[in-house]
Amino acid sequence: MTKKKEITASILIIGNEILSGRTKDLNTSTISSWLNTIGIKVMESRTVLDIEKEIINNLNELKNKYNYVFTSGGIGPTHDDITAESVAKAFGLKYEIHKEGYRILENYYGKENFNEGRQKMIWMPSNANLILNPASGAPGFNVDNVFCLPGVPSILESMLPGLQNKLVGGKPILSKTISLSTIESEIAKSLKEVQDNNKDVDIGSYPFFRKGVIGVSIVLRSEDQSKIDNCNLQILNFVKAKKIQVVERD
Amino acid sequence: MTKKKEITASILIIGNEILSGRTKDLNTSTISSWLNTIGIKVMESRTVLDIEKEIINNLNELKNKYNYVFTSGGIGPTHDDITAESVAKAFGLKYEIHKEGYRILENYYGKENFNEGRQKMIWMPSNANLILNPASGAPGFNVDNVFCLPGVPSILESMLPGLQNKLVGGKPILSKTISLSTIESEIAKSLKEVQDNNKDVDIGSYPFFRKGVIGVSIVLRSEDQSKIDNCNLQILNFVKAKKIQVVERD
Repeated sequence: MTKKKEITASILIIGNEILSGRTKDLNTSTISSWLNTIGIKVMESRTVLDIEKEIINNLNELKNKYNYVFTSGGIGPTHDDITAESVAKAFGLKYEIHKEGYRILENYYGKENFNEGRQKMIWMPSNANLILNPASGAPGFNVDNVFCLPGVPSILESMLPGLQNKLVGGKPILSKTISLSTIESEIAKSLKEVQDNNKDVDIGSYPFFRKGVIGVSIVLRSEDQSKIDNCNLQILNFVKAKKIQVVERD
Repeated sequence: MTKKKEITASILIIGNEILSGRTKDLNTSTISSWLNTIGIKVMESRTVLDIEKEIINNLNELKNKYNYVFTSGGIGPTHDDITAESVAKAFGLKYEIHKEGYRILENYYGKENFNEGRQKMIWMPSNANLILNPASGAPGFNVDNVFCLPGVPSILESMLPGLQNKLVGGKPILSKTISLSTIESEIAKSLKEVQDNNKDVDIGSYPFFRKGVIGVSIVLRSEDQSKIDNCNLQILNFVKAKKIQVVERD
């Protein structure tokens, strides 16, 4: 399914709280949805513990495999925030105070309140590019093709628009969802035929249960609207023949 | 932080819908929380697209690295459900109809309704062990240290209790959360000292914003309640000295 011209990305979520089950990861969904709109396709996401060796090994693998890597988490002031130092080691760079970052945070907190804990947040790989944080001051950073963002979902989300002109994207990835009042096994064979006839369109099938209704959502994804429309027609044809009801999407 | 006696696991989420951003992954949290209660620690989670090569490569890596691998997704009846065939290939096993699974589903749907689409769900690696599904009939399966579960969160959750006696766990991983009305940079140094003095306890620090209140949740995790209690006391000591308010947990 992967085409050579695709611009690809991966996500590395860093944090024990996700793997203990305490916190549900919302950032993969936020980052992926946003990347789709600028034509970058997320190929894989990984979540690792706050263990330096694991972070470094995964970073090295992902940054070589994909055009971009986006990390989330581990850039705060506490002892379990080890992302910046790990990125420095992965790239063989010094880990040091970022001068521009220092000025930004000193200005944000005021000189008298810019304590040691807060200063930890502007220790970064040398010559990192800052990713500005409109929500809470402390910036993220970028080294080569790796972009490091915070773990708090609302703050991460506020920083994405500022990234757009730093990324080279492709055509936005378009999608259409058709929700049917049926079960997967009733349409599996017909849907496979449509997929076989439309190899450029990514066709997913997802059962749902909502408001007491059982159904299947079919999701069509492509960079080309006409291919989605064509695929949609072929699906509506077999749906009509099978007398399956199309239900409204939420 | 990893001790040799730990029993470890990883999670492999299979499905384009997670990496397109359409669907938020709830299963990592569900599986991880449940594994904690039986003393198995999740070390890493990965999400991959419905691409056979990616599934096989990740399976081979994870099943060698950890005691257990739990997969979620891709075991339904449609063309994008390729988990069972990928697991068969990863283990060099035949991909064939599971006789017991066939009887279970034929009985569940009735002979006349057990169509080709539904029969796809009992194509499995040869000699797979079934994981029974109390919610909707179609079983998951287990080969060696790999356990394959469905992607629909409510169905996955219904299948976990039936797995318990197939896994060798350890001591349950206990946790305690202390929520403070403060910000991370105020406590970072003191908290690091407590971590340095309590290397066996995993101490995490997580800022929160809820109901207009800003705070930090400190999470203590260990197999040993007395170590958690001891750590808790040391934290309450510096919290008291700094005149920080402890706020109730949700």
